[in-house]
Amino acid sequence: MAATGENVQLLGIVGSPFVRRVQIALNLKGVEYEFVEQIFGQKSDLLLKYNPVHKKVPVFVHNDKPIAESLVILEYIDETWKSNPILPSDPYKRALARFWSKFIDDKVIDTTWKAVFILEEAEREKIIEELSEALQYLENELKEKFFGGEEFEFVDIAAVFIAFYIPLFQEVAGLHLLTAENFPKLYNWSQDFLNHPVVKESMPPRDPLLAIFKGRYESLTASK
Amino acid sequence: MAATGENVQLLGIVGSPFVRRVQIALNLKGVEYEFVEQIFGQKSDLLLKYNPVHKKVPVFVHNDKPIAESLVILEYIDETWKSNPILPSDPYKRALARFWSKFIDDKVIDTTWKAVFILEEAEREKIIEELSEALQYLENELKEKFFGGEEFEFVDIAAVFIAFYIPLFQEVAGLHLLTAENFPKLYNWSQDFLNHPVVKESMPPRDPLLAIFKGRYESLTASK
Repeated sequence: MAATGENVQLLGIVGSPFVRRVQIALNLKGVEYEFVEQIFGQKSDLLLKYNPVHKKVPVFVHNDKPIAESLVILEYIDETWKSNPILPSDPYKRALARFWSKFIDDKVIDTTWKAVFILEEAEREKIIEELSEALQYLENELKEKFFGGEEFEFVDIAAVFIAFYIPLFQEVAGLHLLTAENFPKLYNWSQDFLNHPVVKESMPPRDPLLAIFKGRYESLTASK
Repeated sequence: MAATGENVQLLGIVGSPFVRRVQIALNLKGVEYEFVEQIFGQKSDLLLKYNPVHKKVPVFVHNDKPIAESLVILEYIDETWKSNPILPSDPYKRALARFWSKFIDDKVIDTTWKAVFILEEAEREKIIEELSEALQYLENELKEKFFGGEEFEFVDIAAVFIAFYIPLFQEVAGLHLLTAENFPKLYNWSQDFLNHPVVKESMPPRDPLLAIFKGRYESLTASK
């Protein structure tokens, strides 16, 4: 759906949940784009040129103008391509969507990484408790099929980490972070979200990613 | 300028730079509000009711609907009261404004606290270097009188911490974090910003705050 002469690029890494947010948004809007794959751990000249401050993916480049930070990119996409809105139109609902997306960034993502990769038992337990508390807030917040209501929206996209990556990580580390038993609403949401046609076409194949994360986890536990 | 029957409250603490952002935005828009002062270190019933997740100020309450997180509040205020826009209208400029405001939150505020209150010399030096690097990015970004151009906007408001609080802290701790010599453009900006009539009427008296921060700093150095 890119207009003639439009140049839409996404610098990304297949395994990144932050890049995945942008891909879901672009697919929801039907925006065609070029995926400029970056190599994990390397900083390409293009990445350094377009995101000199953080040197991280995702970077979204629209007609040579770069934008970094996944939630900032989502807002830009929503303001630039108006079909299939990502943010609600009501200012108060927009504020809540921004609040919960920031909450996921601040309280869920890093905490999950730590829960998986910190192997010291007492510390890990404390972190899992923190993560459970954060997920409980989201469980309580889910009042309809999606955070956005009957269709998925901003918070759902921000929460792709919870739907897709937490189950991967818990399999890798043998943990029970998100299950049908401990967070039934959030678990059902994750299934509905991943089965949505737009999300489905936006996700990477699960098995190769699982193998990569397993490899990293095993090398970590072996060197412990 | 609150319409009849509108109820606008701000739960805040006088010394908080995050609360100050909201006050500047409200004064810029000419929105009348009730300041519901909270006591530092205490969690009032109202605070727990309106921000049960983070239990922190600022909380903005519009007709009994609460919003937390200062940058989220600024967006809400801008969408609700349209006069004197805080965010630019162009989507790309909006994205940059959001990017730099997040940058200030992520790279400047905590780092300054650490630069002031971590007393171990080698660690402090490393942190001051990090802070200088962050301020240098902002120095480079300042191309006109304000970050917003000829009038102050979103990033300027987000950066009130740099204009008002960094000078206070450096006086308290005898540091040179932001001076006319090391960041001339940023320093001039801080003067222009603090002298803007809307900002001037939004700021707390400097001396009592300086005394409070001095007291905290001295009790810390004495107990070292």
